[in-house]
Amino acid sequence: MTFARWWAELLPVGRDELTGGYRRYSWSDADAACRAWFARTATELGLRTDYDRNGNLWAWWGRPGAAPAIVTGSHLDSVPDGGAYDGPLGVVSAFAAISQLRSAGFRPARPIGVAAFTEEEGGRFGVACLGSRLLTGSIAPSAARELRDRDGVTLAAAMAAAGRDASAIGADDELLAGIGAYVELHIEQGSALAGLGAAIGVADGIWPHGRWRIDFAGRADHAGTTRLADRRDPMLPYAATVLAARAAAESAGALATFGKVVAEPGAANAISSVVHAWLDARAPDNPTLEQLVSDVWTAAQQAADQHGVAVRRRQESLSSEVTFDKGLRDRLVGALGEAGFTAPVLPTGAGHDAGVLAARIPTAMLFVRNPTGVSHSPAERAEAADCEAGVAALTAVLADLAGQ
Amino acid sequence: MTFARWWAELLPVGRDELTGGYRRYSWSDADAACRAWFARTATELGLRTDYDRNGNLWAWWGRPGAAPAIVTGSHLDSVPDGGAYDGPLGVVSAFAAISQLRSAGFRPARPIGVAAFTEEEGGRFGVACLGSRLLTGSIAPSAARELRDRDGVTLAAAMAAAGRDASAIGADDELLAGIGAYVELHIEQGSALAGLGAAIGVADGIWPHGRWRIDFAGRADHAGTTRLADRRDPMLPYAATVLAARAAAESAGALATFGKVVAEPGAANAISSVVHAWLDARAPDNPTLEQLVSDVWTAAQQAADQHGVAVRRRQESLSSEVTFDKGLRDRLVGALGEAGFTAPVLPTGAGHDAGVLAARIPTAMLFVRNPTGVSHSPAERAEAADCEAGVAALTAVLADLAGQ
Repeated sequence: MTFARWWAELLPVGRDELTGGYRRYSWSDADAACRAWFARTATELGLRTDYDRNGNLWAWWGRPGAAPAIVTGSHLDSVPDGGAYDGPLGVVSAFAAISQLRSAGFRPARPIGVAAFTEEEGGRFGVACLGSRLLTGSIAPSAARELRDRDGVTLAAAMAAAGRDASAIGADDELLAGIGAYVELHIEQGSALAGLGAAIGVADGIWPHGRWRIDFAGRADHAGTTRLADRRDPMLPYAATVLAARAAAESAGALATFGKVVAEPGAANAISSVVHAWLDARAPDNPTLEQLVSDVWTAAQQAADQHGVAVRRRQESLSSEVTFDKGLRDRLVGALGEAGFTAPVLPTGAGHDAGVLAARIPTAMLFVRNPTGVSHSPAERAEAADCEAGVAALTAVLADLAGQ
Repeated sequence: MTFARWWAELLPVGRDELTGGYRRYSWSDADAACRAWFARTATELGLRTDYDRNGNLWAWWGRPGAAPAIVTGSHLDSVPDGGAYDGPLGVVSAFAAISQLRSAGFRPARPIGVAAFTEEEGGRFGVACLGSRLLTGSIAPSAARELRDRDGVTLAAAMAAAGRDASAIGADDELLAGIGAYVELHIEQGSALAGLGAAIGVADGIWPHGRWRIDFAGRADHAGTTRLADRRDPMLPYAATVLAARAAAESAGALATFGKVVAEPGAANAISSVVHAWLDARAPDNPTLEQLVSDVWTAAQQAADQHGVAVRRRQESLSSEVTFDKGLRDRLVGALGEAGFTAPVLPTGAGHDAGVLAARIPTAMLFVRNPTGVSHSPAERAEAADCEAGVAALTAVLADLAGQ
């Protein structure tokens, strides 16, 4: 099976030996190796590889623009120390499905494309789904070019170092106009399918979600000589806010996480001057998300006041609720049923390029069972049999959508 | 006054333009510039400069070893974004006092030394008072050589890069045997003198204090898809421990601080796998410190249990209670009284090289008033008149101790 070989070829790229996790950051050496793998694999399948103006990769079976294309794919970049499946499973499965269609003598009535979107995780430049956001015009090119990684390198400089021209980035209406539907296959980032005993699921929608940076500004001081009463220690309101966010998420049936925190100056024997913290919040609907973020912010302000600390927040990203195209979703469920799959329909709290593209074109998602539900971790995994089921399901969907 | 010129010459070295704070880390370029300033100033005063085997700097008036020497001085390194006075005030004042003694035609009956100890703050290699600990044999040379900075550079490599031989580091009993007393002048790191209306104080002792690294190990997971109940998020017990430490310190009349925290992988959309945290704890006496650390550890374990997170702790340093030599202290108070100073006797929560040296030789400390009490911060400051008083006080003390 070609899936297994392609998977094995991609597997070592960008893997950290110590953690076993992946560090496939956009426009890095590991990213270049992923892109080279994409081009080799597409060529092996007789597909034509292309970059769009935003650095997203495309492989085409048939001539794009001839008729509304059916596009599948996902992304190849990772979060820091992410797993092997998040993203790559969708790209490898796309190639494997095309291979199966070819072997079966399938003749597409419309072009089929495979896309690998850039910086889906926001792992280098901090904006998730950056490639699809640029493509759809939901982020200004001038702002994107100035995004910086943790070493201060701009997106423009990183693209230039990789041989791409960042002056050309921005919305690409012509490319979008040629696409009839986008179907993304992705490993489930939770364990709902495992609970339901199903190998494959279909996405219902994406929870609204966003990222807020909260800065607590106190006063640096000596940890050994400053009386407790004289302190303005920003670590204390930060800690109170972490606990308040968890409580607020619990009572709202939502999610709140502080996964990134930076204390300055960061010396063990100095009270911090500033604590920078990032809140990731997600909820089943927009009003619940708004209430959750408002509750966390109120708690942060109260705790900061109590300790003589200033606090401010900045919204770094916000993605409204996404409901995938209902007609396309029903068609997927039907095609999967004919192919012998019982595919439950599930919501998800994770953002995806499919969610960004949904604003412009009909999109749908297939999920492959994740037995542990673990994601964004080296421990993320899927069973080989479920990956094969994913390829079979995607093959059936493409045959249906791109057929006569 | 020579004090003002020497102070002005040293002032710009290692100052960060953005924060206004100092980054004078051991064996860095800024450190080399501080050492060059030390050698130039000593030469201007006709003193002979020398390195000891541990990289500490010495300047000698008279021949060391001829009679029990009187040593004064402090350190030139800083915490990240520290102030201008913490350390350098003692070194500049030492040179200025010698200058005054010379101008007055003073003839010392025993050698007078000026010392600048390396890595007093532990700002680069994490062990406070490293230079004096090595000198007195309170840290093993083999362990010290393997200490690493945040870039993974060992002390041995950093010393080699600065032209020093780390294979020679370790206890130096011969050097210590030649010293009769060590008197360190330091800016007060609190506002007790300001409250008492005194420009100069004398140290009573140093609170016992230590540093503990606490690692909370959970499981990396997707922040958008992992149900709250399925999480093992180490940020939550960390936050609970921060608040518990503050409460425990308050009820014990002690100090507890978390000024350094590192979350891994540190992505805003991933639940942390591990949170590394550093507890700085200080108390008026050893039993209170033990109880405080034990209370914080119990709280950390309970919170970790509650969230399915593993926790471990490691003591990185521990300095027992120091009471400075009573005879020397009384002699200082007497000499200061004769010079017209009312110098209150104060305890301090800050560690100093004088505290480390106290285990081997009689030591004492002079404090100069800090009007705001702020320390380990760019906002740290002392009035020029109080700095002049410090020089006058140190001059009187040296004249008394090194006189006929």
